[in-house]
Amino acid sequence: MGVITISREFGSGGRELGRRLADELGYAYYDKEIVSAIAEKHQLNEQSVSYALEGGSFRNFPVHFGRTFSYSPTLMATESKLFTEQNKLLKEIAAKGNCVIVGRAADVILRDHRPFNLFVYADMPAKVRRCQERVGENEHLSAKAIEKQIRKIDADRKKYHGMISDVAWGDKRGYHLCVNTTDWEIKEIAPLIASYIRQWMEDPKEALSD
Amino acid sequence: MGVITISREFGSGGRELGRRLADELGYAYYDKEIVSAIAEKHQLNEQSVSYALEGGSFRNFPVHFGRTFSYSPTLMATESKLFTEQNKLLKEIAAKGNCVIVGRAADVILRDHRPFNLFVYADMPAKVRRCQERVGENEHLSAKAIEKQIRKIDADRKKYHGMISDVAWGDKRGYHLCVNTTDWEIKEIAPLIASYIRQWMEDPKEALSD
Repeated sequence: MGVITISREFGSGGRELGRRLADELGYAYYDKEIVSAIAEKHQLNEQSVSYALEGGSFRNFPVHFGRTFSYSPTLMATESKLFTEQNKLLKEIAAKGNCVIVGRAADVILRDHRPFNLFVYADMPAKVRRCQERVGENEHLSAKAIEKQIRKIDADRKKYHGMISDVAWGDKRGYHLCVNTTDWEIKEIAPLIASYIRQWMEDPKEALSD
Repeated sequence: MGVITISREFGSGGRELGRRLADELGYAYYDKEIVSAIAEKHQLNEQSVSYALEGGSFRNFPVHFGRTFSYSPTLMATESKLFTEQNKLLKEIAAKGNCVIVGRAADVILRDHRPFNLFVYADMPAKVRRCQERVGENEHLSAKAIEKQIRKIDADRKKYHGMISDVAWGDKRGYHLCVNTTDWEIKEIAPLIASYIRQWMEDPKEALSD
């Protein structure tokens, strides 16, 4: 039973790599599917769930508190419940069988499943370039604005990860392999990394520690 | 013309990986050979050269100064000359052709050659275990003593690297791939990483930046 978690800097191509790894290895792939499942179960709007789980007010509580939009304890309780729900769902997914999970701090949440943890990163110009190439998404944004967005999103990821783990998000000690995609087309490396993980999966492994 | 640099935490198996990669790829391998060449050229004892280049007083100047052994300006000048010599030699080696260079901050010194920079690391228990298994080397040392030694040597590496580069030693941004060897026999991963680097070498690449 193999679980692969992908953590990635925004714009590094980590999501595409995750999808391709799942294809290469014949693993199930989860990303937005998790948001959809939770939204459906709670009869909530997908966008709200996504907002809550991927950069919402819960995480940014100290920043948002006291701003113009009022922060209700009820909302916070709901968000906290959504995280609990997400974590439960992650564990169910991992128990079901071979899977690739992108984001959602799955490396921490699924620690007991001894996942293979991959971190995907790239240098800033490469990440900006990749964002610019996403057709229809960032065409109206300047490179500078994209860079700002990248830093903001990654800071959020780091913050959330820091709330639930001693090892910082992006700290290589928390990962089995850290891949710099700066020079690569993702489709070029997917088979190479798939081979690496396939071999790793052959033996039972111990959880990482410092 | 391909240059591979290996930076590694002490005890992570980075040197063995470097040797095996050189074998797999048919590249020349350099490590202690560099010390020997400098020692021969300057008619110096190999051990002194090694001491100067890999953890000697030059690097630890502020710590050693004022200790019981006196620190002579002549010695410092010699050491500084040895580093210059080493850097010159590294560039000559890189210009000659395909090679794997272990340590010596070659990732920084050879930046203009656009090397593939590999960082090799592992968690502490795995590094201690690996050191203990080196027959005839650490048999008399306790795990605690070995751990202390590992931390000391890596701190020295970090310090030297910090003197010549803005990107810290071990900061993943400075490397194309960071490999956690905790779960691996080095001989298992060498062919996998060789394939990765082989493919990377097929296209001309840009130097890494932040």
